[in-house]
Formats: sequence, structure tokens, C-alpha cells
Amino acid sequence: MRPDVTPVDINPDSATEIAIRQQLTLVALGKAPADVALRVGRLLDVATRCWSEDQEIVIKDRRIAYVGPAGSYPGEVALRVHEPDLAAVPGLGEVHKHIESSHLTPEWEAALVLPRGNTWTCEASHEFSNVNGGKTLEFWLKAREAGSPLKIFPLPGSAVPPTGYEHGGGYLGYDEQKAFLKQSLMVAGLDEVMDWPAVWNRDNPSYDRLWGMIRATFEQRGVVEGHAAGIRDLPTINAFAAAGLASDHEAWTFEEFWDKLSHGLFMELRPHSLPDVITGLLQRGLSDWSQIAFTTDDRSASDTLKLGATDYNVRLAIESGLAPEIAIQCATINPARHMRLTPWVGSIAPGRYADIVLLSNVERFEIAKVWADGRQVSEDTRYLPDVPRIDWPDWATKTVNIGRPLVAADFAIAAEPGRATMQAAVLRPFHWADDFLVYELPVEDGLVQRDASRNITKFSVVDRFSGQAAVSKMFWIGCGPRTPDTALACSMAHDKHNIWCVGSSDAAMALAVNAIADNDGGWALVREGQVVATVRYEVAGLMTCRAPEALHAEMQALYAEGDKIDWMYEPTFSPRWFPGFPERLAFATLTCAPWRWVLVAPSDYAPQGLVNVQTGAVQPVVF
Amino acid sequence: MRPDVTPVDINPDSATEIAIRQQLTLVALGKAPADVALRVGRLLDVATRCWSEDQEIVIKDRRIAYVGPAGSYPGEVALRVHEPDLAAVPGLGEVHKHIESSHLTPEWEAALVLPRGNTWTCEASHEFSNVNGGKTLEFWLKAREAGSPLKIFPLPGSAVPPTGYEHGGGYLGYDEQKAFLKQSLMVAGLDEVMDWPAVWNRDNPSYDRLWGMIRATFEQRGVVEGHAAGIRDLPTINAFAAAGLASDHEAWTFEEFWDKLSHGLFMELRPHSLPDVITGLLQRGLSDWSQIAFTTDDRSASDTLKLGATDYNVRLAIESGLAPEIAIQCATINPARHMRLTPWVGSIAPGRYADIVLLSNVERFEIAKVWADGRQVSEDTRYLPDVPRIDWPDWATKTVNIGRPLVAADFAIAAEPGRATMQAAVLRPFHWADDFLVYELPVEDGLVQRDASRNITKFSVVDRFSGQAAVSKMFWIGCGPRTPDTALACSMAHDKHNIWCVGSSDAAMALAVNAIADNDGGWALVREGQVVATVRYEVAGLMTCRAPEALHAEMQALYAEGDKIDWMYEPTFSPRWFPGFPERLAFATLTCAPWRWVLVAPSDYAPQGLVNVQTGAVQPVVF
Repeated sequence: MRPDVTPVDINPDSATEIAIRQQLTLVALGKAPADVALRVGRLLDVATRCWSEDQEIVIKDRRIAYVGPAGSYPGEVALRVHEPDLAAVPGLGEVHKHIESSHLTPEWEAALVLPRGNTWTCEASHEFSNVNGGKTLEFWLKAREAGSPLKIFPLPGSAVPPTGYEHGGGYLGYDEQKAFLKQSLMVAGLDEVMDWPAVWNRDNPSYDRLWGMIRATFEQRGVVEGHAAGIRDLPTINAFAAAGLASDHEAWTFEEFWDKLSHGLFMELRPHSLPDVITGLLQRGLSDWSQIAFTTDDRSASDTLKLGATDYNVRLAIESGLAPEIAIQCATINPARHMRLTPWVGSIAPGRYADIVLLSNVERFEIAKVWADGRQVSEDTRYLPDVPRIDWPDWATKTVNIGRPLVAADFAIAAEPGRATMQAAVLRPFHWADDFLVYELPVEDGLVQRDASRNITKFSVVDRFSGQAAVSKMFWIGCGPRTPDTALACSMAHDKHNIWCVGSSDAAMALAVNAIADNDGGWALVREGQVVATVRYEVAGLMTCRAPEALHAEMQALYAEGDKIDWMYEPTFSPRWFPGFPERLAFATLTCAPWRWVLVAPSDYAPQGLVNVQTGAVQPVVF
Repeated sequence: MRPDVTPVDINPDSATEIAIRQQLTLVALGKAPADVALRVGRLLDVATRCWSEDQEIVIKDRRIAYVGPAGSYPGEVALRVHEPDLAAVPGLGEVHKHIESSHLTPEWEAALVLPRGNTWTCEASHEFSNVNGGKTLEFWLKAREAGSPLKIFPLPGSAVPPTGYEHGGGYLGYDEQKAFLKQSLMVAGLDEVMDWPAVWNRDNPSYDRLWGMIRATFEQRGVVEGHAAGIRDLPTINAFAAAGLASDHEAWTFEEFWDKLSHGLFMELRPHSLPDVITGLLQRGLSDWSQIAFTTDDRSASDTLKLGATDYNVRLAIESGLAPEIAIQCATINPARHMRLTPWVGSIAPGRYADIVLLSNVERFEIAKVWADGRQVSEDTRYLPDVPRIDWPDWATKTVNIGRPLVAADFAIAAEPGRATMQAAVLRPFHWADDFLVYELPVEDGLVQRDASRNITKFSVVDRFSGQAAVSKMFWIGCGPRTPDTALACSMAHDKHNIWCVGSSDAAMALAVNAIADNDGGWALVREGQVVATVRYEVAGLMTCRAPEALHAEMQALYAEGDKIDWMYEPTFSPRWFPGFPERLAFATLTCAPWRWVLVAPSDYAPQGLVNVQTGAVQPVVF
């Protein structure tokens, strides 16, 4: 390609990439005209961690062609913009984020996070991949093709399926990962390897699939991301790094963080542990922060509206005592370098996308304006571009396939004939113990019964992929409604994303799940026999195609109805499991480490769904 | 592959790589036995820049499986080694080195540099590539296959040929680079893009070839290395970065270094400018050194014997005031991260090669022992392993193909009939001026004559690839022998590596070149009509397959004979051009920026060989 052809700079392939750079080279030299010169009061170079005063950033199309002192650019410029009072820092990046957890489609995610400084995201895509694995790339690249300025670098999910005991909407192995990496340069690597037993134990049914994906990623020079939740002992940390898993974002304490950082893992720090870890690192006197990035992982649109996006992570770090410039590096060049994306993002430097965050106050990280793809995209928190209208196709929107409406009997748990009580295998949310609990429960009409007096109710996972009306169900303790005939269900059930439902009657559970099916996904709350609230996640059963404020309002209505319900509660391991509306049950179906016993949809391996994902043991839910 | 198969850990492909890591994972957990535990007095973690006392490094085969406090490894260990008084730092790496400039074959390079701490090298391979482009990879991977512990990561040369005005032993473009990157994971990217006019100017004959190689490198997620010699103005630095060239190693001053570093280039710092640049960076208060590496580029075996290898660069940095720990990072994790080689090298961490430098004194960077591939390879500067015997095949050893013995007439420059004098286009070594010099020279017997009284003699480039006995020749000033019937020739003539020859008579020049051809390459010195010294570079005409001490002795003999000659001299731009034996003429035939007028072998483009490589202008050598 020759530079007189204007390349289309969207998810570029290698041929387009060089055409863009051939043109940029001429623009930088002043031999071809530039589109815009953005002159700023000062500019942070994240390579040196130094500020320069009164700089101009010269832009051609979507990229930076030139950076230098104001007035130094030798070429022609069509438009000049001057922001003498603002400080320019690079567009912020997410090194590990599930956009699905915003519950917004990517074009609406862009509208939410761009005004908050986040111009690029390494999409940890196993949520969508578990719903429709084959369409992973097409899905994540589509918003940008439609005009969205948010750069999305998809990392196909390693957890598809999350364990070898499950199946569903996606299966990714060596061939699939190889194809993804070949198909687009936007694919940065392999998303968080989280099924640790399948990594070290060759008898695990996912062993060959997972190592196949790792192999394909090495083969194509991609980055293999890790997820080392609950891995705190030195031998396992060593083993994790030895396996070739390059990073972790699951450290909860300073000590854990330090042990991982000093054993060769690139450390991605999430807000919930960020203040403690930063404090510890500062006390330890860490002088090199280059192997650390901040990341969000999961955050709802409502929380982003309240707290912020990546900017919140940066502010939290500054409030924890970190120098603003280092905090900014941890959200720009550090993650870009780790993800091998420095040619495109992470610094205000030639060749990179013209993604610039303009701060009115650096110490408080107050964002006045954001530029992305060479144009201003926000004013305060207001998003300026039109959000492209994407008619998401059926493969994205028709993903709830139960097969038929469910009835109460689908949730019944039969007793052995003649038994007045049965032993039940019981779990709590975030039940990270080697053994399940055992309770003796009454039998009525041949069916095993809940026991609200002991905080025991029913939890279920409904297969939403096979169309076989397949339902797993068992008794859980310390979660779910005490209010009669009440149920809560959701089609976000990490990471397989079947439908989970917790309820005080089987009929209410059926009603809730059917309401979700009618909406193509989302939340449904049934109170005393009536559907009182739903939230639509009509895309992949995980996301909705509308403004964050609209979703937020609907979630608030759900919470308001939820507040009228008496929710059971028992404390368990996780500090993120609170009393009240049990929104976090969406994460209680995870099947990665440190989970042991979990309920999955019925599978050939575990027909009743109760399986120990560390050992592969299967257990009847009553006995 | 399953871990009960022992993978062969040499230049691993992706399948072998995962088999290695599957095994390492079990070893780290203590579920499979380790080979060695190396216990050290202290250990530097380059991710945090922190030391830990009394650590053990547990090794399986060639890799590190586990690092932790002494005694903490839970598994079985076959051999325990204790070095309580030594400090362990990672094996040092070269981010940009031409092993050819050592003039040793890779297995002998290993013997030279490993005791000096250098366990891995990103081989800037355009020297060999210009001699036999198609065999680039086979050549650089062969020594390791034969048992050499030095890790060589070849970067195929972008300068093959160096400019569009030359041709010879290699032609690398899109297809070739794509094939190299697919063929081996050891290929890290594209070697230094140095023909700047061919990058920005689409009319340059190398434009499409060069961008094709850049494209193939982006496509395979490799690193595109730069070489920005003489590029000091801000627009060109911006253009260089905008072109996607990721690094530079050619900055001579602090100001130039800073401008490049702060415009997105990873900066590779060479010894000759290191003290000044480090001093400047320290004065500027640089607090983040993560975008900086030290590198050697070119160093003869003799100089390495005298100064050291990468260890010399580190010592020089410490002597210039840099903290030893930062200096060590600049030769370990920083270059590994830039080259995307962190899974293999750059830190003492699980999964990486067990390459460890044991220091008796950190502040003076005194190396006591070096481990590589999991075994001790040196004691002081003594190399312990047997150097593998490699019978380099004919494609490596029979690369001097002139076609026939040359005679004096091949070096004659004919005058126009009837002229008593001719104007001559004259160059000096390192003649970085827009115009050549013009001198009027006498004609005798129809041939244009030298003029020793004005420091003018003859310089020649002999095509050693085509077998056509093609010889370019012209008059140069300020170099070469004043002693009669004397000539110096060498088959190292950067970067095309034809044979250059400078001489006070045409017969002496023919004699010198023929002596080189008889030796399959190297140096030849003719004094007063007699060959008085030769040095064999029988591999690719650039390297020799023997101990560095043997080469050094032969070079000393050459210098000793050279000292008996009266050498012309004139100062010119480069501070590295000195009076005396003109060894550095091997670099005076470079055709990259900042060179302008240079002499190349006769080509269709420039039949007499005198061409301006910035503009493409061609000039008769006399007129």
C-alpha cells in the first residue's frame, strides 16, 4: 500500500497498519498536512515520568504524528486547539476487564468509560465466549467498526468452558485460539487462565484443551494472562509462573502481591485490595513500579457512574499515597507494555492513537476532557459523539435457549421412596472448603424440603444453551429469600453463564427463570408469586444495548423491590459477600480456584450438577 | 504432549515449550523431582529491584522451577550447591548485538561471553544475512543445537540488502521475514531498520521491500528494531517513531538520547556514549529507567577479552554513577521485556532459563561464576564446557566467490583519451557531507593516478557474491597506506560485506584481495609487494571457528605488521576514526544514514559503484 491511499484505521491488519504509518511518517516530517494540533499546558511523558510545558500534539486521522514544544511542528495543520490550563496524560487502559460486567454492549460501554479517561480495554472475554464462543472476535470488534472510539483488544477466554465438567455456548481450544490470533492483530493473547487444577494435573479433563490454548498463544507471540485466586503458598506461586502464566490480578494482601510480583508475575491490582497493597509497597520502599498495572476486572455500570472507570483506580492509588505520575503509568504504559500494545496505546507519542486525557487537576486526577481517535469525545462526564446504533444480530441476542417454559416440578428434588428425611449436600456462597456441608432435611410428598429456620433454601442452575430444559438444583445455606414464594434469577452466572436462581418455592423459581427467557436474558425478581422486577440483558444474556443511565435506573428499581424481601445471610470466606440483596450470587457459580464444590448445569460428567472442580468428585445433591 | 515425555529444550517450538512448562509446574509443586538447587547468599529480583538473602534456585533440566528462601522447596533435589558468599543476578542479555563483529562463530562467541555474564543475545543478523540471507535462521540456531548454552534470538536483518542500490548474498522481504517468524519462536522481530530514506521516501527503491518486512513483523507480533543514526531533529525523531520503529541505539549525546526516549523509542545505550548519557540522565533526575537497555552492538573478540562483554557495559554504568541494581535491570529485564522475551530470559524467576550470574562484588560487578541452562559454565573468566565442534557446511564457509584471481588492471581507473588530468570524486572515511570532494589528479599511461602528497590513494569494493570479478574503485583521501606497494583488504565491509581494499598500488590491492579469497575471508595485509599478515574469517567471510585467544593472537600479528606501515590520516566527523591502522574502514562502507556518498560494488543501478544513498544520485568516479 502507498500513502496516497487513505487507510481505514479501525482494528487494523498489518497491511493497513503500515499504510497508516507510511502516511504518519510524512506528516511528522511536515511533508504531508496534519489534521489537528492540540496544544496543552503540560504533557506527561510516561516513558520518563516527566512533564513538559506548553506542548503540541499533532494528529493525522486517528493517530499522533508529532509531539513537541508548541509551534515546533514544521507542517501544515488544518485545525488548532489550545488548552493552556489543562494537563495531558495518555488515554487510560484496562489490562483486564470484563466489559460484560458493565452489562452494556461495547458501544455503550464506550459512552460510559471514555469520559472517565478509559480509551482502551483488554477485554477478558470469556463471559461472551462462554455464550457464543465462535463469535467472540466478531462481537468485540463490531462496535469499533460501527464508529465507537474505544479500542477493544479482545483476549479469547481460556475458561471456555470454565472446567471440563461443563459445556455450553462455547468451546475454545488450540485450533480456535490459533485462528483468533491469526485473524486479528487486535487479539493480544489468552484471557486469564483460571482453572489451576487443569493446569497442573494432567488427569483433569480440561488439561489438553487449556494447554492447547496456551500453546497457540505462545505460537503466535501473544500474552498468556493468569488468574491465581487463592494461590498464596510459595510452591504454587512458583508453579503458576513456571507454567508460563504471565500475570495475576487476584492478590488480596500485600504479602501475596509481593510474593507474586517477585516471582516473575506481572501484577494487575484491583481496587478492592489496592489501598492495602499500595500502602504495603510504599512501606517496603518499592522503587520500580514497571511490573504493576491497575485494573477493574468487573464493575457494573451503576458503580462506574458512581465511582468512575479507570480514573477511579488511579484516584484510589493517589489517595493511597502513590505519586500521581506513577499511578498514571500503572494505567497507561505499564499495561500497554505488558500486553505488547505499545505501538498503539499507552503513551502520548508518535504512531500511537491520539487518545489523550486532559486533566484540570493532576493531584486529584480530575478529568476535564478526553480525546480519542484524534477528536474530543467528552466534556466533563458528558460523552459527545453519537453512540452508533448497532442492530445486534440473533447470534448475539437470542442466546437463552431453555427449550420450553419451566414448571415447579423442574426444581423439585425427589427423595428416595419411603424416606422421611434425606441427607442433603449443602453449599454456602463462596464455599471454599474441601467438603460440602451436610444437613438432614424433611421429606414431604416424596420431595426433599427447604428449611428456612436453618437458613436453608434452594439454589438452581438452568442450562440455557442446550434447549433440553435441563435443571440442576440443590440446597444452599445463608442466601436467598426467606419471604415465601419468592425467587431471584439471573442469566449472568459466572463463568458459564447459565441461569442461576435462588428461591423459597419451586413455582417462584420457575416463574423467575421464564421471565428471564422472555426477556432474552437479565434479572427477574419474583415476590410472593408475582414478577415484580426485571432487568433486560438482551445481548448474550449479559449486556444491554442502551445508555448506562437507563440500565442504572432499572437496576435501582430491582434493588428497591429486592429491599422488600427478607434475605437470608451467613458470613463466609469472601469479604465481598454482604447481607441484603444477593447480587453477588452471580459470582457464586464460578468453577475456578479457589472454588471446590460447585453446582453446574447437568452434564454427562455430573448429571445432578454437583461437582468438586478441584478433584473431579461428583456427589448426589441428596442421599 | 504430556510431561512424562522429556522435551528437548533447545530453541523450543510451541509444542516443546508447553511440554517443558507442564513438567516444570510439577517440579515447582514438589510433585516431580528437581535436578539442582543452587543456594546463594543473596538474590536480586529485577521486577522489584530488591535483594533477598539466602535463597535457593531450584532447577529442572535447563529452567528454573522454583525460587524461595533456602530450605523452602518441598520436593526432591538430586544435587545441592551452596554459594553463601555470592550474589545471584539474572544472566545478562544483549538487546542488539552483531556477533559477527566478534568474528567468532556462535559456539566460540559463547565461550567468550558466557564467563562475562552474557547468557542471551538478540542477534542483529544482517551481517550474516547479507552473505547468505536464506540460511540466516539455520546459521544462528545451529550452535545451540550442537550444545552451546548461549541463547541466541536472531532478528533477521532489515538491511538485506542495505540499500536498493546494492545486491549480493541475500534479499529479505515480506515473504522471507514472515517465514522466519513462523519458523521459530526464537525469532524476536526485525533487526534495526537503518535505511531511513527508504522508510520515508516512497520513491526509494527499497521502500516496498523494507515496509514489507515491517509488515510481516507486525503481522507475527514481533518487535521492529530501529537505528536512528544522525537523526537528531525533532520532526525526524517523531517520524521515526511514527513509522513504528520501536527503538534506537545510535544516540551520541544526552540531548539526543532524551529526545528519543521521550518520544516513545526504547533506548539502547552503547558504551561509547554511555558515561555522558548516564550522567545527563542522573542530572535530569530520571526516576524510571524501564525504557532503557545497555547494548554492545559491535565489539571484537580482542576488545571483549580486554574489557568484558555485557558486564563491561554494566560496570561502565555503575562507574558513571548509576545504582548497580538499575544497571543490572538495564541488561536483564528491561531488554527482555522490550524484546517480549520475558517468558525465557531477563529474571531469576520460574519458567525462565536457569541463567544466573554469581557476583563476588556487586558494586564493582565482579563475576565469580556463571550458570547457564542450569549448570555452571564458568569459573572466573574460564569457560568450563567443551565447545561443540561444528563442521560448518559449505554454505557457511565458501562465501567468497569473486570468480577468478584479480590482477592489477582490475583496480585501474581509466582516464578519458587525451586527458593529462582528470577530476576525481573523492571521499574520506565517514564522509557525511552532502557533496563528495573533487580533486584534479594526474593521468599516466591513460590511467588516473593516486597522489600521496595530498593524502589521496585508492579504495575499492570487490563483489564477492556474483563470481563476475566485479570491482568498484575510486580515490579516497585521508586513509590507506603511504608505504609503496602496500594494501589492506578485508571481507568484513559493513553492511553488504563485499571485500574492501585500500592500497598504494593496484598490484598490491589485487594481491591482498586474492589472499582473502584463498582464505575464504578475513584480513590480508600486503606490504611492499608481500603478503605479511592474514587473518582467517572462514565462516561467511566474517567469523572464524576457533578460540577467541587464537583470533586475538592473529589480530595482534596483523596489527604488528600494520604498525610498520605509514598510514595516511585526516580527521573527519566520527570520533571513532583514529590515526594508525585503519581497522575501522570496515564500517566506512556503510550505506545507511547518515552516510550520503558511498562506494558499493558495481550494480546495474551504479555501474561504477559511487552512489548517494540518501538521494539515489550516481556519479562517475572520474570525469
